[in-house]
Amino acid sequence: MCRWLAYIGEPRLIEQFLYDGPHSLCEQAQHSHKAKLGVHGDGGGLGWYGKPAEPGLYRDAGPAWADTNLRELTRVIESEVFFAHVRASTGAANLSVNCHPFRAARLLFMHNGQIGGFVQLRRQLLSLLSDTCFDQLSGGTDSELLFQLMITNGLRDDPDHAIRKTISDVDELRRNENIKEAFRATMALTDGNTVRVVRWSSDQYAPSLYLNQDNGGALVVSEPLDEDISKWTAVPVNRLVRLELHPGGEIKVHSEPFLVQNNGDDHNKL
Amino acid sequence: MCRWLAYIGEPRLIEQFLYDGPHSLCEQAQHSHKAKLGVHGDGGGLGWYGKPAEPGLYRDAGPAWADTNLRELTRVIESEVFFAHVRASTGAANLSVNCHPFRAARLLFMHNGQIGGFVQLRRQLLSLLSDTCFDQLSGGTDSELLFQLMITNGLRDDPDHAIRKTISDVDELRRNENIKEAFRATMALTDGNTVRVVRWSSDQYAPSLYLNQDNGGALVVSEPLDEDISKWTAVPVNRLVRLELHPGGEIKVHSEPFLVQNNGDDHNKL
Amino acid sequence: MCRWLAYIGEPRLIEQFLYDGPHSLCEQAQHSHKAKLGVHGDGGGLGWYGKPAEPGLYRDAGPAWADTNLRELTRVIESEVFFAHVRASTGAANLSVNCHPFRAARLLFMHNGQIGGFVQLRRQLLSLLSDTCFDQLSGGTDSELLFQLMITNGLRDDPDHAIRKTISDVDELRRNENIKEAFRATMALTDGNTVRVVRWSSDQYAPSLYLNQDNGGALVVSEPLDEDISKWTAVPVNRLVRLELHPGGEIKVHSEPFLVQNNGDDHNKL
Amino acid sequence: MCRWLAYIGEPRLIEQFLYDGPHSLCEQAQHSHKAKLGVHGDGGGLGWYGKPAEPGLYRDAGPAWADTNLRELTRVIESEVFFAHVRASTGAANLSVNCHPFRAARLLFMHNGQIGGFVQLRRQLLSLLSDTCFDQLSGGTDSELLFQLMITNGLRDDPDHAIRKTISDVDELRRNENIKEAFRATMALTDGNTVRVVRWSSDQYAPSLYLNQDNGGALVVSEPLDEDISKWTAVPVNRLVRLELHPGGEIKVHSEPFLVQNNGDDHNKL
Repeated sequence: MCRWLAYIGEPRLIEQFLYDGPHSLCEQAQHSHKAKLGVHGDGGGLGWYGKPAEPGLYRDAGPAWADTNLRELTRVIESEVFFAHVRASTGAANLSVNCHPFRAARLLFMHNGQIGGFVQLRRQLLSLLSDTCFDQLSGGTDSELLFQLMITNGLRDDPDHAIRKTISDVDELRRNENIKEAFRATMALTDGNTVRVVRWSSDQYAPSLYLNQDNGGALVVSEPLDEDISKWTAVPVNRLVRLELHPGGEIKVHSEPFLVQNNGDDHNKL
Repeated sequence: MCRWLAYIGEPRLIEQFLYDGPHSLCEQAQHSHKAKLGVHGDGGGLGWYGKPAEPGLYRDAGPAWADTNLRELTRVIESEVFFAHVRASTGAANLSVNCHPFRAARLLFMHNGQIGGFVQLRRQLLSLLSDTCFDQLSGGTDSELLFQLMITNGLRDDPDHAIRKTISDVDELRRNENIKEAFRATMALTDGNTVRVVRWSSDQYAPSLYLNQDNGGALVVSEPLDEDISKWTAVPVNRLVRLELHPGGEIKVHSEPFLVQNNGDDHNKL
Repeated sequence: MCRWLAYIGEPRLIEQFLYDGPHSLCEQAQHSHKAKLGVHGDGGGLGWYGKPAEPGLYRDAGPAWADTNLRELTRVIESEVFFAHVRASTGAANLSVNCHPFRAARLLFMHNGQIGGFVQLRRQLLSLLSDTCFDQLSGGTDSELLFQLMITNGLRDDPDHAIRKTISDVDELRRNENIKEAFRATMALTDGNTVRVVRWSSDQYAPSLYLNQDNGGALVVSEPLDEDISKWTAVPVNRLVRLELHPGGEIKVHSEPFLVQNNGDDHNKL
Repeated sequence: MCRWLAYIGEPRLIEQFLYDGPHSLCEQAQHSHKAKLGVHGDGGGLGWYGKPAEPGLYRDAGPAWADTNLRELTRVIESEVFFAHVRASTGAANLSVNCHPFRAARLLFMHNGQIGGFVQLRRQLLSLLSDTCFDQLSGGTDSELLFQLMITNGLRDDPDHAIRKTISDVDELRRNENIKEAFRATMALTDGNTVRVVRWSSDQYAPSLYLNQDNGGALVVSEPLDEDISKWTAVPVNRLVRLELHPGGEIKVHSEPFLVQNNGDDHNKL
């Protein structure tokens, strides 16, 4: 399980979100309130869009709270769209290639959740990948594999469809194999223009996800960065939210049900 | 603040103490019960005595719970005397040279505690070191500096005196500089034959320390490795304990008051 | 390409082979004489047999010449059978999981060489693995994949056959895919009792391999550790050599042709 | 000994200088032509000026040629003034805090060279530091100590004087202590507006240094990035060169003798 944040809006220095305030992302890494695992010390990462079309990427397997390079980067990098992530391994090794975000050309992806029974399902899931996507895999996480499955399923052409199809296919395989452990996913995807976030679970325990929108930008987080409850809105479960940055700086937020047919083991409710 | 364990006795595989049981050292690293800082993810280390007179040493700045090399070593190394440590930095950087134990020729040292006002006192403390000890420093922790001060003060010839003189001198300097923060020390030292542990604080909040002695060996730990309270004895505060391994395998334990004159800011009681 | 050494014989401290002498393994890491790549700074590793049946393993992705933990371990570990390796990546990332030796239960494997066209062949090669072996893969090197293919092919029951079958199968696939780059392999395998080394290439450029046998032990190395040519014997190409440690300390060396049918692109001669 | 490059001019992506061309900085790291040590695998670093007054800083102790984070950063960071460095340790440990560049508020510093007899002189040199500068030291290199000595000597107010005084003082101490090994320095300093480079040695073997100036910018390097000799000018020994970026993009280069009084062990000539 992990903690992450995704930002879209007017250019902002990243540092404030990772280090400032009572419950910044790096504070959450040591003392999460809402995660099953309280400690997220198994690596951190940052993806951001600047002048080149392909986003910048920084990942390190050490604890984010002690990562001086991460701190430095966030102090000088200002960006309109960025993803940040702190990791608590659910099995894959502590290696930089297993840290989020993952990148494919212009796309970034990050995730908090878990495919139940992943060890058992992994080889079958790998067989679903296109050759190109198979060759792009560099680590052993279920998250990276989900991302490459989405690309195989057409993420670049029809992202909403590709995301839905991937989650459905993986969950179907999980159920066919009689895996009892749930499949839970809070994911963020972007091409630098639109940020998509999904909150979904095969059971009723979807990981938490919150949205905070102000005049200049929108922030989606695994858990709120401070105690001011009024400004953080829970993203409903079984939801796909699109955040678009329009010329002039306006953020348009569109939210829709994620999977019309409930794939849930149970009620897919909050 | 840190968590550590020191063992002396019949040869045992190290793995069990770091990974087995409900509250092993690496479990404590993620979820300490008794430490001010619940997470000890800023490095780990191991020192052990084998055939060579100088102990082996392994230290890494990553979280001990995810350190596959540490796990491997503990699986194959069996030793009569070993120290293991997980670190939560109180300021010095996450670097292997700042991880415990520290070694000087045949000696090992590790520590949980803190010199109050260390940043302010550091240059004065360094000036007390012999040239040889000054040159041996490789990191920036107060712990390593304490160790080199003890060596400067004759640790090899009269360890009890050197330990007492060092703690007294440092605390006197601290009080002369009107530092309000306490000086707290739970330390372990060994030459491979005798293990010395100290539990002391300038105020009444000495860090916890427990002893568990069975037929074959003695274990001193920052906090118990399991819930079986009956076998863990708290080391009293203001105490120097010597554990000696005698031929035939008997462990002799000698405990004495540490500093006869109370240097405490307050009552030096439990 | 890499540099390695394998030792079998009376117990010896490992340090001397990695750090002493004019052309020790860590010296080779910086200034190889015989390798295509002069610098082997992409990680190092050590596997050794002690009391437990499963060997100890230490691997790190940094340059071996600067690895203080590696130095420490070799200073205290004495062993009858050990493998040491310094890596120059031919593509796979600098990660500890890509460092040699690789271990599977009681077995160790290390390699210098390269499967020509590995990126193109990788997915097909993976499909040849048993499910168990597929799940054991933790990195992305051709070396680890070769090792797991050998296990799939019966390495535990009939090692000579499994090694031959694996090399033949891989090379056949390579030729079927019209890969022009050669497949070259100098490999070492052991279960802690017998060390097998192979020197083979699909073309005439098999990587170098030398044997040095004295009263107490035998050492196989990618290149000699010193300039005393008289004591280093080149292992002939297309050769499988078995080194067995017999009770009483005698080392029996058996050498036989490796692949009777020449799979070579060319003459498989020195 | 190390290899470095310093750039000032119109904004450029950093990647080209570190990875492109026949003898880029990361190529030099593996196969230097002009350095005493051919391999520079003991860490790398980058400092660059962007919007904030304080430059960004990235440093890692692994080999620069395999550092995926460094590669990523150079791919997206465009800057008017940046420093890049690959390290070959002359003694200090492979730690990120020992990697160049070093930063103090708005200033960056990097170095190739060595204070002869540094181990012997270190404690005396440290005693020359102001308390503030002493507290800023985070590693054990002679380079970082030189930088903090310059700051102690007024680098922010009168950089030319501070640089000269520091080199003179250190060299005087070296000669007073009868150190035979030379003091050699090729250094770069900047505040983000002016880059100063120095090429100097106490003997006749000053490390190499080259300048390449084109329409848009100026580059100073330890050794040329390609074979086109016509565009690389050797910086004469005993020289202080100032490169200033003027509004409109013009680079003004001013070169003057560095130490009027020759402190050399010998002739300080090319």
